[in-house]
Amino acid sequence: MATRCAVVGATGLAGQQFLAALQNHPFFECVRIAASSRSAGKKLSDAVRQDSGAIGWYVEPSALEHYRELVVEDSKTMSLDGIELVFTAVDSEPARELEPMYAQKLPVISAASAFRYEADVPLLIPAVNGAHAQLIRVQQKKRGWDGFIVPIPNCTTTGMAIALAPLHAAFGIEKVIMTSMQATSGAGRSPGVIALDIVDNIIPYIKSEEEKVVKETTKILGLLAGETIEPANVRVSCTCTRAPVLEGHTETVTVSLSRATTIQECVAAMRVFGRDINPNTHPSAPQHWITVLDDPFRPQPRRDRENEHGMTTTVGRLRPDDVLGEYGVKFVLVSHNTKMGAAKGAILVAEDLKLRGFI
Amino acid sequence: MATRCAVVGATGLAGQQFLAALQNHPFFECVRIAASSRSAGKKLSDAVRQDSGAIGWYVEPSALEHYRELVVEDSKTMSLDGIELVFTAVDSEPARELEPMYAQKLPVISAASAFRYEADVPLLIPAVNGAHAQLIRVQQKKRGWDGFIVPIPNCTTTGMAIALAPLHAAFGIEKVIMTSMQATSGAGRSPGVIALDIVDNIIPYIKSEEEKVVKETTKILGLLAGETIEPANVRVSCTCTRAPVLEGHTETVTVSLSRATTIQECVAAMRVFGRDINPNTHPSAPQHWITVLDDPFRPQPRRDRENEHGMTTTVGRLRPDDVLGEYGVKFVLVSHNTKMGAAKGAILVAEDLKLRGFI
Amino acid sequence: MATRCAVVGATGLAGQQFLAALQNHPFFECVRIAASSRSAGKKLSDAVRQDSGAIGWYVEPSALEHYRELVVEDSKTMSLDGIELVFTAVDSEPARELEPMYAQKLPVISAASAFRYEADVPLLIPAVNGAHAQLIRVQQKKRGWDGFIVPIPNCTTTGMAIALAPLHAAFGIEKVIMTSMQATSGAGRSPGVIALDIVDNIIPYIKSEEEKVVKETTKILGLLAGETIEPANVRVSCTCTRAPVLEGHTETVTVSLSRATTIQECVAAMRVFGRDINPNTHPSAPQHWITVLDDPFRPQPRRDRENEHGMTTTVGRLRPDDVLGEYGVKFVLVSHNTKMGAAKGAILVAEDLKLRGFI
Amino acid sequence: MATRCAVVGATGLAGQQFLAALQNHPFFECVRIAASSRSAGKKLSDAVRQDSGAIGWYVEPSALEHYRELVVEDSKTMSLDGIELVFTAVDSEPARELEPMYAQKLPVISAASAFRYEADVPLLIPAVNGAHAQLIRVQQKKRGWDGFIVPIPNCTTTGMAIALAPLHAAFGIEKVIMTSMQATSGAGRSPGVIALDIVDNIIPYIKSEEEKVVKETTKILGLLAGETIEPANVRVSCTCTRAPVLEGHTETVTVSLSRATTIQECVAAMRVFGRDINPNTHPSAPQHWITVLDDPFRPQPRRDRENEHGMTTTVGRLRPDDVLGEYGVKFVLVSHNTKMGAAKGAILVAEDLKLRGFI
Repeated sequence: MATRCAVVGATGLAGQQFLAALQNHPFFECVRIAASSRSAGKKLSDAVRQDSGAIGWYVEPSALEHYRELVVEDSKTMSLDGIELVFTAVDSEPARELEPMYAQKLPVISAASAFRYEADVPLLIPAVNGAHAQLIRVQQKKRGWDGFIVPIPNCTTTGMAIALAPLHAAFGIEKVIMTSMQATSGAGRSPGVIALDIVDNIIPYIKSEEEKVVKETTKILGLLAGETIEPANVRVSCTCTRAPVLEGHTETVTVSLSRATTIQECVAAMRVFGRDINPNTHPSAPQHWITVLDDPFRPQPRRDRENEHGMTTTVGRLRPDDVLGEYGVKFVLVSHNTKMGAAKGAILVAEDLKLRGFI
Repeated sequence: MATRCAVVGATGLAGQQFLAALQNHPFFECVRIAASSRSAGKKLSDAVRQDSGAIGWYVEPSALEHYRELVVEDSKTMSLDGIELVFTAVDSEPARELEPMYAQKLPVISAASAFRYEADVPLLIPAVNGAHAQLIRVQQKKRGWDGFIVPIPNCTTTGMAIALAPLHAAFGIEKVIMTSMQATSGAGRSPGVIALDIVDNIIPYIKSEEEKVVKETTKILGLLAGETIEPANVRVSCTCTRAPVLEGHTETVTVSLSRATTIQECVAAMRVFGRDINPNTHPSAPQHWITVLDDPFRPQPRRDRENEHGMTTTVGRLRPDDVLGEYGVKFVLVSHNTKMGAAKGAILVAEDLKLRGFI
Repeated sequence: MATRCAVVGATGLAGQQFLAALQNHPFFECVRIAASSRSAGKKLSDAVRQDSGAIGWYVEPSALEHYRELVVEDSKTMSLDGIELVFTAVDSEPARELEPMYAQKLPVISAASAFRYEADVPLLIPAVNGAHAQLIRVQQKKRGWDGFIVPIPNCTTTGMAIALAPLHAAFGIEKVIMTSMQATSGAGRSPGVIALDIVDNIIPYIKSEEEKVVKETTKILGLLAGETIEPANVRVSCTCTRAPVLEGHTETVTVSLSRATTIQECVAAMRVFGRDINPNTHPSAPQHWITVLDDPFRPQPRRDRENEHGMTTTVGRLRPDDVLGEYGVKFVLVSHNTKMGAAKGAILVAEDLKLRGFI
Repeated sequence: MATRCAVVGATGLAGQQFLAALQNHPFFECVRIAASSRSAGKKLSDAVRQDSGAIGWYVEPSALEHYRELVVEDSKTMSLDGIELVFTAVDSEPARELEPMYAQKLPVISAASAFRYEADVPLLIPAVNGAHAQLIRVQQKKRGWDGFIVPIPNCTTTGMAIALAPLHAAFGIEKVIMTSMQATSGAGRSPGVIALDIVDNIIPYIKSEEEKVVKETTKILGLLAGETIEPANVRVSCTCTRAPVLEGHTETVTVSLSRATTIQECVAAMRVFGRDINPNTHPSAPQHWITVLDDPFRPQPRRDRENEHGMTTTVGRLRPDDVLGEYGVKFVLVSHNTKMGAAKGAILVAEDLKLRGFI
């Protein structure tokens, strides 16, 4: 029987993406939606209608059709009765207040950054660090919660962590230097990135993004040691920029490895990575966690972001590099920042936790 | 009295940019223009008129007005009588044939890559490696030419070489890792980059570009030793991408240095760099070869490419990096690829060579 | 049993779209592909591989997989044995030579404009003017062909003709004033529209486009009278522009009608239009030929071009207008120029002709 | 001696454009700036500094340099002592409150729409309807003000009204059908148009825009009759859309005239239009109010918006039209929406009123 869940922040872009991804989901059924008090009490179809008469629904129309009669509750007073799981798609500040409130009773899978860096909070990508889920028990014990909070990583971290994981496992990663060219959807819609700033332009800075990538990458690639995660001994340096791209983050990644390898071995390691977590086991998982392309002109965000429904990380231009370290490779990746990097990635985490008995 | 010069490839985009920059130039007067046999015999104003009735003139209209009555000659048979200098704005393949033909008699300043990597050919950026101009004498002796060929670097190399030069001089550069996000104007107009490929997209590869950047950077930062240039002992690794930007290349650059320094010292070194070559001495030179900005959201190609008439390299986000090496910095730069990186950069080289008696 | 067909011009963008649309088609099986002599003799997968190493395949990868072993024939010498139908996706000039050659034996459904304006050639959109197909018999008799040529209209005409058809049938159209904002895909890839021309820009002219729209609209809305089509007595004036949009033409249309009506009646007429030609009868047909939206901010090309797999014409902002004529309406439409307006539209015509015994 | 003026709304994009245009202005000197209470009390250079550390200054850096030490006053309590003129660049709602407050004592030239449609308020474009300025005396008498309010038209109206004026004067305009493709700068920065909505897209609706264009065009082309303006008997129908263009509105305009004319006569009428108001008399005026181009691919917003410093209306594709009416023409125009259509246009109105003794 489907796990009954709530989506908090349901009227925003990220929340809508949760609803779209939960329609007809085999494991989960969204039975409650919440948002700020401004929307509370309205049917979803009214809550997304704007003053101008426009319908502010940005994802599959079928999802609005599906949930249109659901009444939006106030996220601060929403009842948790009858639900077993909460997905949150709110900003970091409200998340800091709301998520612990829900977590006292229920599992909370969060797209917000509020709790990502706390010592007892795992940052899960199932194929990469599923073992970190054990930290949930530490969190529950320490905080006295029946539920828990598991955030997903920042969308810029996710693609890189996936691409690095098989290299780290097979050859040991020592250093990483990365430049991102991030899609505007990463900034959401309010205020989002205005066209006047990004058309015919690159913005070379995204506030706090580089710090997040550094901290999250080492945490995700780290090892669970007793009641905490020992960060991986990987040095990460990055420059995060915004590009005139709608969806899909592109990253150029240079990696130094602990020992010699070949491009063929790297490709092989990437191609088999994560294959135990696939659509047969996890409905939202990709068949291939990493898709490696030979065409030197790929990956491209517009042409590759939707590969495997936005859930694979597409890698190309894999070639040796001996400048960052004695042994190494460099490559370009594209990761769908609002699918694997957001709602669908969070749902995939929930699928994994359910299969493993945490939900 | 003005040096009388010719522009070869005058009907193309790069050639038009030469004409625009030579209008009313205090040192040079363009008195002859040449292009392929298809345009030969036509007035410039007719040669740039297209079948559809449109005028294929893409730069300042005043330049077309200025040169409209000049008759285009065939670049293969153009007479060199009465001219003292040739600027070439043609593809690499015709350049390989045409430039030596002109160089037997006259100085040739070239925007093409044909001769950049030959041992007796300097790759000049006046403030960076003006001393390399002495190689011209070697070239003339070896090839038996009265003239010579001096190419300018690739537009992607230029900005980075300028930004690195003061750091190399002051602190010694050991390694560089760079990612470029290049403007579509770098690919010219035939065929250029089509909108279907680049709108809402990034293309992660530009053929031969990375090899050019690596070879050119070490050559430019190298030292003239006897009859050849000893490349700088700098390890360069790069990934060159194309972004939906009209003009202005953006580059993220990570540098490891030979010794410890501070951001303040780096800024200071950049800000004074090249100040002897300025608009008072060289009409096309910028007041500041490098403009360093504090605003973390800068440089941006659309907002910074025209700084100092497209002739300064704008640097921002200068911050320490200790991942590439023990000591180091990283930064973002914007350089105008079709101004400092092309026609106006070539004219600046010619100004320098004239002031120093080579022309 | 499936009708065996050939696609001519198969390596180009339009040809690829035919192949993508013919994969697993219930009526048609593509068994032969042809292109210019440059590609002849190569397998499709090699013919679309470019010098740079890139794969020049722009549509669904599954279609390349499906047809990769087919050897490209030379369109001038291709054998017609064993095939029953030819789809052509070539420029107008080669079409003028090739299509009559094929039509001597076989039906030719063409995306080219070469024969659109000949008196004995119908310009078919099944739901609009299916009756014009009878002109095929005139054409065959007059030209002595066993086959025939049926072109589809220009992509800019198609959407407007569909939106006008129910209004013309119900209320009589007297005048139309239209402005188009056309997608860059309409210009194909060689040379296509370069980013330098269209990013941050509008180009106010597309050669010959306005003349095509005027002639084709009146022909399509006309009546078959004996052995010819009497053009509709509708006055059409238009301005065709190119906008920075990848796919999907947007058109603002002002219409004067012969008699008074209401917006509700217009909406009703549009919503039922063409319902006998639907996916149950014609595999490529949309469920609704016209989709009318209430949201004043729609239709938008990016959000509406893929409605009903790119086969519906989406109309919005339907409101009264009494400036063009005494009675009238104005609206905005979006039509997918490379789906309904090209390959898939041509296949829909073929489906209709097959169902009606012409193929 | 320069007229001392204030700019209200000085920290916003439009206000910054006023400051940029007033730097070194021969008639006006900005000595006071005001904004909402949030900025009040800060130096301009601090008021435009954002939390993120970025400098939110979007126009010429020289203007920020020029005015950086000016302290922002609260627009509700700003003293009018020592100033003679107020420019307002605020939204319509605050304008409704602030402008009458200032107008009791001083002339107010406004970029807001608050008072545009009041019977005693002229809507001035100097070359088009300078005579309407006499309505100022009616306004002062009726309202008992020492000062007055003169708004400029909506930016979409301005270019069309200028292009129509010489045709109306010479041949009489009966009807106009217009489609606009408007730049994103027209929506300002808060919230502005987000990239997620407009990249690779057209938005077919701008709230209230079409109503404004209709009312303003007939008012501007109307005649002052006694104490009111008799709107011109011109029927206007329009569709206003938003396009992925940064600056410069493009409009396709179809016009029916009262009598026969030729394209040559129309061009001639446009080319001489407004020549008494030029840079010799009015510092901000263009040399040509209308620039007519022959190249069928022009005007284009990116290539033509800056013609004559953004103050000319560029017209192209002028050709006959007999669909809208018996006699008529159609054309495409580009008008710089944030120069002639905003701050610089307002300053030009002030120049004209000063020369004529109203200021």
